[in-house]
Formats: sequence, C-alpha cells, structure tokens
Amino acid sequence: MFRTIEWLDDNRVRLVDQTKLPLRVEFIETKSHERIAQAIKVMEIRGAPAIGAAAGMGMALAAIESNAQSKKELLEFLEDAARTLNTRPTAVNLTWATARMLRVARETEGTVKEIVSRLIEEAKEIAEEDVRMCRRIGENALPLIKPGYTIQTICNAGSLATVHLGTVGAVIRVAHEKYGNIRVYAAETRPRQQGARLTVFELMEDGIDTTLITDGMIGTVFREGRVDCCVVGADRILRTGHVTNKIGTYTMAITAKYHGIPFYVAAPTSTIDMVTDVDDVIIEERSPDEVRMINGQYITVPTAKVYNPAFDITPPDLITAIITDRGVIEQPDEEKMRRMFG
Amino acid sequence: MFRTIEWLDDNRVRLVDQTKLPLRVEFIETKSHERIAQAIKVMEIRGAPAIGAAAGMGMALAAIESNAQSKKELLEFLEDAARTLNTRPTAVNLTWATARMLRVARETEGTVKEIVSRLIEEAKEIAEEDVRMCRRIGENALPLIKPGYTIQTICNAGSLATVHLGTVGAVIRVAHEKYGNIRVYAAETRPRQQGARLTVFELMEDGIDTTLITDGMIGTVFREGRVDCCVVGADRILRTGHVTNKIGTYTMAITAKYHGIPFYVAAPTSTIDMVTDVDDVIIEERSPDEVRMINGQYITVPTAKVYNPAFDITPPDLITAIITDRGVIEQPDEEKMRRMFG
Repeated sequence: MFRTIEWLDDNRVRLVDQTKLPLRVEFIETKSHERIAQAIKVMEIRGAPAIGAAAGMGMALAAIESNAQSKKELLEFLEDAARTLNTRPTAVNLTWATARMLRVARETEGTVKEIVSRLIEEAKEIAEEDVRMCRRIGENALPLIKPGYTIQTICNAGSLATVHLGTVGAVIRVAHEKYGNIRVYAAETRPRQQGARLTVFELMEDGIDTTLITDGMIGTVFREGRVDCCVVGADRILRTGHVTNKIGTYTMAITAKYHGIPFYVAAPTSTIDMVTDVDDVIIEERSPDEVRMINGQYITVPTAKVYNPAFDITPPDLITAIITDRGVIEQPDEEKMRRMFG
Repeated sequence: MFRTIEWLDDNRVRLVDQTKLPLRVEFIETKSHERIAQAIKVMEIRGAPAIGAAAGMGMALAAIESNAQSKKELLEFLEDAARTLNTRPTAVNLTWATARMLRVARETEGTVKEIVSRLIEEAKEIAEEDVRMCRRIGENALPLIKPGYTIQTICNAGSLATVHLGTVGAVIRVAHEKYGNIRVYAAETRPRQQGARLTVFELMEDGIDTTLITDGMIGTVFREGRVDCCVVGADRILRTGHVTNKIGTYTMAITAKYHGIPFYVAAPTSTIDMVTDVDDVIIEERSPDEVRMINGQYITVPTAKVYNPAFDITPPDLITAIITDRGVIEQPDEEKMRRMFG
C-alpha cells in the first residue's frame, strides 16, 4: 500500500491524486507549496488527517522555496505560505498544522539552514504521528475483531483519508496483518460514493477480500449473516457518545441493532468534541446536484426537488463501542466519555 | 398524466418509451405486433401489469394485421403472434394475456371481422381492468392516508409499471385527488435507480410535491419526522405475509419500525402467492455491473467484487398493513391471508 502523502528524500512531496481514483492511479510530485495548496483546494487530497499532513509538508516546502537570508525573511515567507495553504477554512487540521509549523519556525534557534531542516523534520513528524495514531486505533480494536471476521463499513475512513492505514482502515489492516483472513463489505455511500470509489480501491490494492454493495442492501447482507460486525468512521463524537458520520451510517446502525450485529466507531482523539450538545450539531445540506447527477450526468429529472443532508447522527444506544487511539469505550455514555477525554 | 400504454381510436397502440425516461418523453406508436414484442423485449415497456396490457394489445394488432380470410387462418396467425410476443418468459402477465386473447379468438362466433372487433375490445378490457384494479387499491388505502400526509416510497410501483395510476401510485394519487395535499419522498433505489428515474418523473408530471433522497438517507428522514408513512410495492406476497420487493425495502421497513412509522405494502391480488414457503423464495442475483456502473460509466474499480441481490424479503412483523384491490389486511399473518385469498 502506498502512502496517501509522503516526503521523498530529495525534498519533493508525493501524493496520490484522489480526483482520478479509482480508475487511474496518478501521483502528484512537487517542490511547490502553492501546488500543495491547490491540491488541498481541489480535493486531490482529502480527509482531515491527510490534509493536516499536506499542510505541514507545504510549509516545509515553502521554507526551502523561500531562499531566505534571515530568520525574519523566512518567517515572513512562511506566514504568507500559511495563508496560501489555508484554502479550506472548515478543516481544523489544516490551520492546526500550519500554526504548528509557524511556531516551530519561531522557536527554533540557529541558522536559516538549521531552521529549514527542523521544519522538514516537523512536517515528517506530523505525518508519522498520524501513522502511529492510526496504528494504535487498529491495535486497540484487535480484541474486538476475531480471526475470519467479515467487517461491514461505509464511506471511506481508510488510508486515503489519512497518511497511511486509515482509522477504520487500521482496524481492518491490523486485524488482517495478524489473522490474514479479514474480509470487508463496503457500502457504496451515495451520493458521493466514497465507498465504491475509494474504500474498494484501497482495500483491493492491499489484497483484502472486499465486496461492494449498495446502501439499500445492508438489511439483506445482515439477515443473511454475511458480516460479523460494522466498523465506521466519525466526523465528530460528542461527550454523550452521539456520532456524526457520513449519511447512511445511522440507517446502518439501526439495521445492525435489529440483527444483533456489533456496531463499532473508529476515530482519532481529535474527533472528540466534549463541548457541543447534540441538538446544536448542524448537519450540512449540500447541493441537490450531488443526488441528481453521477459523473456529470443526470439520473433524474434535472429540476427534481432533493433533500441532501451530508451527515447523520447515530445515538450511543446503537453503538457497541467507540475505538480511539487512546482506548476503547464500550457502550459509550457521558460518564465513560468524560473519564477518557474529559 | 398520460397512460403508459393506450389503444388509440385509429387502431394504433401508443406507449411511452421508458428507456428514454426521465430525460426525454418519447412515445412509440405502432400498428405492428412485432414492434410491441420488441418494446417488451428491450424494456421500452416494463412492469408486470403494463406488459400484460401490451401483450393483449399486441394480439389485437396481430388480428388486424393477419388479413385472414377464415377463422382458421386468423387463429394460426394469432398463435404465431403469441409466440412472437412472449419475449420475457418469466413475466406471468405476458403469457396470461396472450392465452386469454387466443381463448377469446377461439370462442368467438361470427365473421373474421367480428372476431377481430371482439379481440380489440378484449385488449382494451385487459387494460381497463388494470386501471380499475389500481383505483380499487387506492380507494382501499384511503382510510390509512390522512390529509397532508407525506409518503415515503422506494422503487417505482407507479403508473409506469401499470397502465395507469400504479399500485403505490394509486395510493398516492387517489389520496391526492381527495385531499389535494399529499407529498412524497422517493428513495433513489440503487442500483437501477427506478425511484430517481421513474417515480420522481411521473409524480412531478402529476404536480405532486416529490422529494428525491438516496437510500441511505432514510434514517435521517424518519428521525426528522419528515414522513408520515411508507408505502411500497411488492413482487410477491406469501401466505405468511412475507413481502418480496426491490432491494432496499427490508432496510427501509426495519428503519420505519425503529421510528414507529407505519409501513404499508400496496399490491394487486395477482401478486399473492399462497403456495411458496419463504425459505423457497429465490432472490435473483443480477450482474455486478449494475452496481459497478451508472449510465455506462464505472463508479468503482472495474474488477471490484460485488453482491447484487435484486430483491429482499420483509417479514410480516415489520408490515403495518397489506393493501390490495380486494381489501386491506392489517398486521398480516397466515390466518388473515387465508381468509382473504385462500
């Protein structure tokens, strides 16, 4: 499996172009932080952890590009670069990574050359931290996943959303590394089909036996005993244990409960939100054309009225356990959440 | 609303070309039974009741085309025509309609001209019976549908699957005729998207307020209180009350139950199967490319493994009532089914 984004030895950054997947596997290689900014903006790279790593590497590239003669010149160039890289204002990992790189630049003593070296190391470290965090999620999940398990997932919380392994991806890969016989059912995940486009692609690349189904088939797959558990990602986990994730997750959780199938959520600590109340979570409603069109072609009347919420909220009583890099919370509730993350 | 198939006064048959919907509304007009056979074969017309009507009209066209000089000549021509029209061997309505037309031809006394006239009347009658049966389904459903209701449906059990009105279509239309304020949520129904392609189209044509959602959004739509009940069609209803219908129906029924939303099945008596046991129902698994491709374009890795069951089975404990042309069975079970259909 390739890394979604990687710092190469000759100080180039290489990333897979996710707008071309799954039909073409093309890499972007660049020494330009502006090219990284563009990649984030047009979603050639996507997924909060992967975007964070890209922003860190973009800052390191900028440090090299600056040809600064003084620390002051370097810092000015980096502040400009941070503004250039912050192309998606809602991605917290993006501003977090550029701020972290700026702080390191300010705090490092020594020559410009030494500061630049330090920034390259920091960018690599941000990526490595992401890899380690994912691996811990996978290892923490191991007691829940038995040899020969077939895992149902939805959307893409795989390596393509992170630097490597993924969150749900780590649960699958670490168990598969250990047991060698983990299988996956991937739900298509309409409207944007990240399951079909990304999850199927990356698991096939790893030689993991993966079967694609449409979202409506979940009931039949469960009834026929084809899967042993569900593992899904999360965009936000509240202190009450409510999980916001890609639309379709809630329907899957209800259907899993009906069939007595364990329903696990895998996510990094950075996804935990101990502040917001469930009633205050705003579900983004996106363009009707995401539902009306596929690959640029209409699949319905072009003027059809559409409801297109991008996320849904699964309540804790439908969740068997939340798996994080810090540990596993079974039957999540506010008390258990506070004990681990409070 | 136009009729899906219609006998015109100048002895032509007109049908809407469903392969062009929803982006183009084109009609096929023909005096040739071979053209009707082709329309059935390539699914320019589809839906069991609509196919039955088409086959009946195809036989009437053949009777005119025959230019027979004797009843014997006419019958021979019609027997050939029946073979030509039976292009889809599993469609029971197809063989049923051609057999009925042949029997009428044999049993009618008089000149060839009189027999041909009688056959034209019989073809029209097959279509009219279908229209009346749908209307009775809609009328029988009326006590269950209150003014201002929003109805969730899946797939297309609308006018396009019948001659007029539809089965679920009749429930919606008869209530809308009476109250004037019925609204509909149509689930896309992957993989073949009959909800997006056909249901949205035909209800918009009728000016019924219709909102398209993807199949995975059903949980959110229910949780947000957007619909008052579900009404779905059926491909087969067993004596135990188990309902076979388009894939996604079962997941919807589980999700409706979880939210306490009534789940109704609307179907004609011809859908009732008092013989087969639930374990003997064979679920057709269709081509993986139906899931892998949309509009002829791949949406996943072209070699992706796919599970593609076309139908699912909803058990009676998830069904609030079965609505037929003969009457309504609330909380269906074998005893109630036998009392009405036994």
